[in-house]
Amino acid sequence: MEKKLLTDLLVNSNVMIPSLLLDNYYSLGLNERECMLLIHVHAFISHGNYFPTPNELSERMSCTPAECAETLRYLIQKGYLAMDQSKDNNIYSEAYTLLPLWEKLVSHHYQNEVSNESHEQETALYTI
Amino acid sequence: MEKKLLTDLLVNSNVMIPSLLLDNYYSLGLNERECMLLIHVHAFISHGNYFPTPNELSERMSCTPAECAETLRYLIQKGYLAMDQSKDNNIYSEAYTLLPLWEKLVSHHYQNEVSNESHEQETALYTI
Amino acid sequence: MEKKLLTDLLVNSNVMIPSLLLDNYYSLGLNERECMLLIHVHAFISHGNYFPTPNELSERMSCTPAECAETLRYLIQKGYLAMDQSKDNNIYSEAYTLLPLWEKLVSHHYQNEVSNESHEQETALYTI
Amino acid sequence: MEKKLLTDLLVNSNVMIPSLLLDNYYSLGLNERECMLLIHVHAFISHGNYFPTPNELSERMSCTPAECAETLRYLIQKGYLAMDQSKDNNIYSEAYTLLPLWEKLVSHHYQNEVSNESHEQETALYTI
Repeated sequence: MEKKLLTDLLVNSNVMIPSLLLDNYYSLGLNERECMLLIHVHAFISHGNYFPTPNELSERMSCTPAECAETLRYLIQKGYLAMDQSKDNNIYSEAYTLLPLWEKLVSHHYQNEVSNESHEQETALYTI
Repeated sequence: MEKKLLTDLLVNSNVMIPSLLLDNYYSLGLNERECMLLIHVHAFISHGNYFPTPNELSERMSCTPAECAETLRYLIQKGYLAMDQSKDNNIYSEAYTLLPLWEKLVSHHYQNEVSNESHEQETALYTI
Repeated sequence: MEKKLLTDLLVNSNVMIPSLLLDNYYSLGLNERECMLLIHVHAFISHGNYFPTPNELSERMSCTPAECAETLRYLIQKGYLAMDQSKDNNIYSEAYTLLPLWEKLVSHHYQNEVSNESHEQETALYTI
Repeated sequence: MEKKLLTDLLVNSNVMIPSLLLDNYYSLGLNERECMLLIHVHAFISHGNYFPTPNELSERMSCTPAECAETLRYLIQKGYLAMDQSKDNNIYSEAYTLLPLWEKLVSHHYQNEVSNESHEQETALYTI
């Protein structure tokens, strides 16, 4: 058992979370529960499950499946999360995509950088 | 600006979070806000800041500095977080350590593995 | 273009490599080219391609497709790499698995820890 | 011992390597040994050692300390690696920085993206 446990720890031990998400979720308008739900979806996707159910999500969270489903709907409606539908050999499949979230983060960060820069230029101007 | 932004994204873009934490914080007794606070402390430590202040933490969270300080105290008291004090050249320094959390997670996971295994053995017994 | 580039950098920017591999490949008997080939296979698998071809590998390496194929055979023969065959809906598929490598690393590390420990105990004995 | 080993595996188990490095080191003019040396320097820096010695590096590599020192010199001379000197409380310290490498990678990737795009536009033109 032990060797299997160690091997498993070695390979699946970490999930990578974009620093921009941790640093900016609050200024993007998300609270901890919403952000954590998105992190869980991201972790499921990283491990190959592209469409975790509210039940699977609620097992890891302090909310019921119904609350998870409601938060997922809210996040989709507000444009933090989206659903992709694809058809392959007459089989429809659904997948969550976090692309809208990453785009919001990049836009937000990019704007910050630009406004910091123009601010620095202004400051530079006034200190001449 | 752009090249600096890209280089920064390339190098500092991700923080590694132990999967065991994401999968088990709730069964360890933590809610999303508490877990996220620990993730923020972990991210600060990963970037070389071993003692983030309640102010620094609250800037990224949906809680006030006072609420952050209170949650930090609670997490230390409950044994999820600890503080290391060291003295170097007559300078005292304080650092958070998440070692108690990692140990709780490993113990928790280890017990689960063991109980799953004995459960599997029992099941195997009954199906003979 | 730029926003797409940034989003891409944000999400796919890093691959996680087990520290045990970096620290121990040489003492496990691998040289840099062999280890790098295994890292490339690991990165392809992380991005969902479970059976990269010698051509795909050689595009990123300072060796020809034929040299890549030969090194792959050598690594399989020496037990660092294995192939899984599966049959799904009458379609056979092949996948590389790095499980043998992770097991070797865990065994190697575990032995080192144990021998360090008994060495420490011995040293402790002699210093009494 | 075991619990310490598990905790250690949990926390220090992985090093993040930029995908751009793995995908492009060869087209940037690096071979596997040179790239691996840079990865080792990156891993040492990630763990807080900003100036690993040729001895420390050669312990993990299939080359002697003298060969490591020579490759380090070559990589600095060719602009893949640089050294930062800082003075703090009258103590000089030296640190490697991989910033030149990240900048090369971003420039390389950016150019590729741009040339792909203009190529796509051209193709689009001809297919009208």
